[in-house]
Amino acid sequence: MSEMTAAATDGHPFDAMLHLQPQADGSFVAHTHAGYANMVGPYGGATAALLLQGVLQHPDRLGEPLSLTVNFAGPVQDGPMHLVVRVVRTNRTTQHWLVELRQSDATTGQEHTVTTASVVTALRRSVFEQQLAAAPQVPPPQDCPEFDVSRAMTWLQRYEWRVISGGLPTTWDDSCHLAQTRLWVRDRPARALDFASLAALCDVFFPRIWLVRARPVPIGTVSLTVYFHADAAQLAAHGSAHVLGQADGQVLRGGFFDQSAQLWDAQGQLLATSHQIVYYKE
Amino acid sequence: MSEMTAAATDGHPFDAMLHLQPQADGSFVAHTHAGYANMVGPYGGATAALLLQGVLQHPDRLGEPLSLTVNFAGPVQDGPMHLVVRVVRTNRTTQHWLVELRQSDATTGQEHTVTTASVVTALRRSVFEQQLAAAPQVPPPQDCPEFDVSRAMTWLQRYEWRVISGGLPTTWDDSCHLAQTRLWVRDRPARALDFASLAALCDVFFPRIWLVRARPVPIGTVSLTVYFHADAAQLAAHGSAHVLGQADGQVLRGGFFDQSAQLWDAQGQLLATSHQIVYYKE
Repeated sequence: MSEMTAAATDGHPFDAMLHLQPQADGSFVAHTHAGYANMVGPYGGATAALLLQGVLQHPDRLGEPLSLTVNFAGPVQDGPMHLVVRVVRTNRTTQHWLVELRQSDATTGQEHTVTTASVVTALRRSVFEQQLAAAPQVPPPQDCPEFDVSRAMTWLQRYEWRVISGGLPTTWDDSCHLAQTRLWVRDRPARALDFASLAALCDVFFPRIWLVRARPVPIGTVSLTVYFHADAAQLAAHGSAHVLGQADGQVLRGGFFDQSAQLWDAQGQLLATSHQIVYYKE
Repeated sequence: MSEMTAAATDGHPFDAMLHLQPQADGSFVAHTHAGYANMVGPYGGATAALLLQGVLQHPDRLGEPLSLTVNFAGPVQDGPMHLVVRVVRTNRTTQHWLVELRQSDATTGQEHTVTTASVVTALRRSVFEQQLAAAPQVPPPQDCPEFDVSRAMTWLQRYEWRVISGGLPTTWDDSCHLAQTRLWVRDRPARALDFASLAALCDVFFPRIWLVRARPVPIGTVSLTVYFHADAAQLAAHGSAHVLGQADGQVLRGGFFDQSAQLWDAQGQLLATSHQIVYYKE
């Protein structure tokens, strides 16, 4: 657990993962973090958060994150990464960004784009508001058993999981299930919620096809979109409390399925909604 | 109705709108089409379709559209447009694209990016499939009254509307409503469905805030994502039949609301799902 030791001395592993070194040309250099390792390369939610962080840390940024779309073009290799952040247009209330994550080929040294993102930041205003998607009635986090991830893939150990319904199948028997999962989740160790960690949380739900089919087929997210509904004040008030998450899906066809997620705070306020399209092998 | 006359002689207005003139450097020149005019500039669904068309018409394209995210960075002016289409990465089953729509400033002549898009094209395969989102039970198109758009904004006249439920409020009285709309819709005149017209159809639903509030506040889509679930064979089989559409929303807050849509064929097969985040003024 070397990264847990690192967390105790150097801050939270999520912040270490997000570390961006500004370059003279305005771009950033980052490095994959062992604590967020997935089967191949880093956890996709961590990569999404990193690309968003490139915008958050940009000196020309206006406002707070409103939307984020990350396209996972190719595998991210463990090692250094180059983030090129470009402001496309600045309006009065919105600002549009394009981000490219590039890595150098080990043999040729040539840079390739492995992930792209578009980000919109915005100034939120006090206007009419109404929430239409009510949070489901569920037991509080402390009444939901913690899911043991001590032997799971590394990035899963960066979260505290309290599954309410629709957990990972306990037997992989090709039985058929609904696609919905509900859970309480937060960073582990606990960390105050911010836009970057909220973006990462949108991708924590295991692939719907594993639940629907009760078969752990190989998968990979192709494109992920996050809409942020909370502002900075709501996130600050949330602190390091658990987030209530719900994931579902609509269709699996042709080797790709969709997956959607909603994240609420404990008071039932929607923090973010998210959508993704995911490759599956068989 | 000059564009209807043009349709009769030169083909469908949607195809005229999609016309791309290839340039020596691989980019395309297009022109806004009067038949798809919105209050300011063109209908957003038409712009989304045009950016997708830039990829569809690119000589290096692999596979069919899988996902499309369009960021409406600034207003599109009536007039010529410049489409710059770049392939970011080509994998075995997916290909990643970035598209920028640029227009020249009338006074300085300088090009500005007004819309960006990321597109993923993919090779679909015959694997396990299951549809989880069943189409609602609704009357057939011929039993649903046609919504009269003869005096509405021009682009609305490019579609045949048969509202099933959740239609545009008839009185703007600030009463409160659910956000869901169901309708049958297709191009007018009828046109065989393809990926570009399916993309445009994902944006036909009037803004959820008009329904929720029964108040026509100024709005503008900021970012639109489309996931294509149909393949070319399914679209070919669909022909020019009506599409069953359903739109809903989850939250309106801080000057932005989300909106989602599902499009099925008459047999209940999901053709596309879509999500957008929309600015509202008050």
